[in-house]
Amino acid sequence: MNEFELIARLTTSLPSNKAVVVGAGDDCAVLDLGVPDKLILFKTDAVVEGIHFSRETPPEKIGRKALARALSDIAAMAGTPTAALVTVALPENFDPESVSKIYDGLNLLAKKNGVAVVGGETTKTNDRILISIALLGTVPRGRKILRSGAKIGDAIFVTGELGGSLAEKHLEFEPRLAEARWLAEHFPIHAMMDLSDGLAGDLRHILAASQVGAEILKSAVPISHAAKLRAKEGSAAKPAFAAALTDGEDFELLFTVAGKDAVKLLDAWKPQFPKVKLSCIGKIVSGEGIFIRDKTGSHQLKAHGYVHFP
Amino acid sequence: MNEFELIARLTTSLPSNKAVVVGAGDDCAVLDLGVPDKLILFKTDAVVEGIHFSRETPPEKIGRKALARALSDIAAMAGTPTAALVTVALPENFDPESVSKIYDGLNLLAKKNGVAVVGGETTKTNDRILISIALLGTVPRGRKILRSGAKIGDAIFVTGELGGSLAEKHLEFEPRLAEARWLAEHFPIHAMMDLSDGLAGDLRHILAASQVGAEILKSAVPISHAAKLRAKEGSAAKPAFAAALTDGEDFELLFTVAGKDAVKLLDAWKPQFPKVKLSCIGKIVSGEGIFIRDKTGSHQLKAHGYVHFP
Repeated sequence: MNEFELIARLTTSLPSNKAVVVGAGDDCAVLDLGVPDKLILFKTDAVVEGIHFSRETPPEKIGRKALARALSDIAAMAGTPTAALVTVALPENFDPESVSKIYDGLNLLAKKNGVAVVGGETTKTNDRILISIALLGTVPRGRKILRSGAKIGDAIFVTGELGGSLAEKHLEFEPRLAEARWLAEHFPIHAMMDLSDGLAGDLRHILAASQVGAEILKSAVPISHAAKLRAKEGSAAKPAFAAALTDGEDFELLFTVAGKDAVKLLDAWKPQFPKVKLSCIGKIVSGEGIFIRDKTGSHQLKAHGYVHFP
Repeated sequence: MNEFELIARLTTSLPSNKAVVVGAGDDCAVLDLGVPDKLILFKTDAVVEGIHFSRETPPEKIGRKALARALSDIAAMAGTPTAALVTVALPENFDPESVSKIYDGLNLLAKKNGVAVVGGETTKTNDRILISIALLGTVPRGRKILRSGAKIGDAIFVTGELGGSLAEKHLEFEPRLAEARWLAEHFPIHAMMDLSDGLAGDLRHILAASQVGAEILKSAVPISHAAKLRAKEGSAAKPAFAAALTDGEDFELLFTVAGKDAVKLLDAWKPQFPKVKLSCIGKIVSGEGIFIRDKTGSHQLKAHGYVHFP
């Protein structure tokens, strides 16, 4: 049983109530708690030593990354983050100075994004450091964007460049909060999520939720410099295109809009976010699965994204 | 540096924003997100194998306890829980069937309390199982109860009986949600919290937040049957009164009301909650610290409650 099978099994009969607008299965849970013009976004995300960072990672960057990942999930719903709680599990011999530095990195990113850190706890673990962030945010009613709205004929977009995040970006990335809110305000975005497990794996979540397929134009997928560099390093390296499809932790936005809006969107984007690349990488089609179109034709993609567990 | 010193250091300069009504340091964070008649409660709580349960604890009870602890924090604010996210960190060899059972126990308690489980994640750890619960709740505006409102002359109350929780209660307790809401609706409760680290340690939080002291009447402290039984087991056992003061995980309510309301409260409580004991155990006094009054006089209490970290 892999992570997705386990999650599928666990989420079949979760308790619900009338406050739940969207439960498990999207980037954030969405709740209606009676704010007149807004819905509440609710998300937790954990980083674990040995998976998301190493013992050698500077503690400020560990703290920053822990919060940045959760912020990226709020971005994926076109939301605005409000308040975070921080749970840190540490080995007994861990230095309090380093705990302070974890918080320093986290607090700095929180301030930058207007997020209040309203508490949390520090607990013991045997070996690996684990940091779990619980995050609350809001989104204007009628402006939340789910994974399930992709329609046949939609253009598929990604922000930034993909692959090779492990070289540096996974510790440095800026959650696409402003970009996502601008998109939701100015265009009818049909479906959106953030890329955490790799394009190939994550796009499948949109396709499954929307019951559609996708055709990706190989030459249109933006490949990061880091992925290209690594591909040149020798025969053991992943080809750059494969890295762009399957490396995790890009934390870029993946979204779809009606085909008719695609060019208008690209034109409006450039002056708004001159430093952030936006690429139309393909289209939503009928059927299921992902097809990659290159010079030789259209090929079904078998590769999956990164699977966390087991 | 112990847990409280570390927390004090970490919470001195946390980022805040205008949504924050109460930040770190009370049972829950309190946020104003614009719900006309309500404030939002936000809390995380983690249980860790070897501290809060053992590898032999039935998985249903582990899941139940993880949620029950967080519910108790919502109770401590006189709130109503709404939605939970569940983070489970597991060793690689952990059986998926047991993960399902953790969720079964948790879901059952969630349903009983009208709480929606809206997602979460399962991640890897090396050794100890860790479950972190993020919980959202609400409290009517003007009815939240903090730790900081105790006044000189207040009567100090506890629900239930204290000590010996480790024998069984820590896996079985019912969070005092209904009791706390009833209290807040019917009496001007000055200060309240839930007992998780033992009366002696937890009462100090109310005293410090309210800048007052307390005198506890030794004979009035309700001692659990389990603590009395254990005290009889031999010379290595903790005396029953010490257990009632310092054992952790009672998850009872500790609160104060004006002295003039004390008898009225005791009279009104009995028909409302016939199965839950309510005890007036002392009074709030000027100064600082805890004094225990017995037949021989009044003695300052040095013992602290349970400290989690380091």
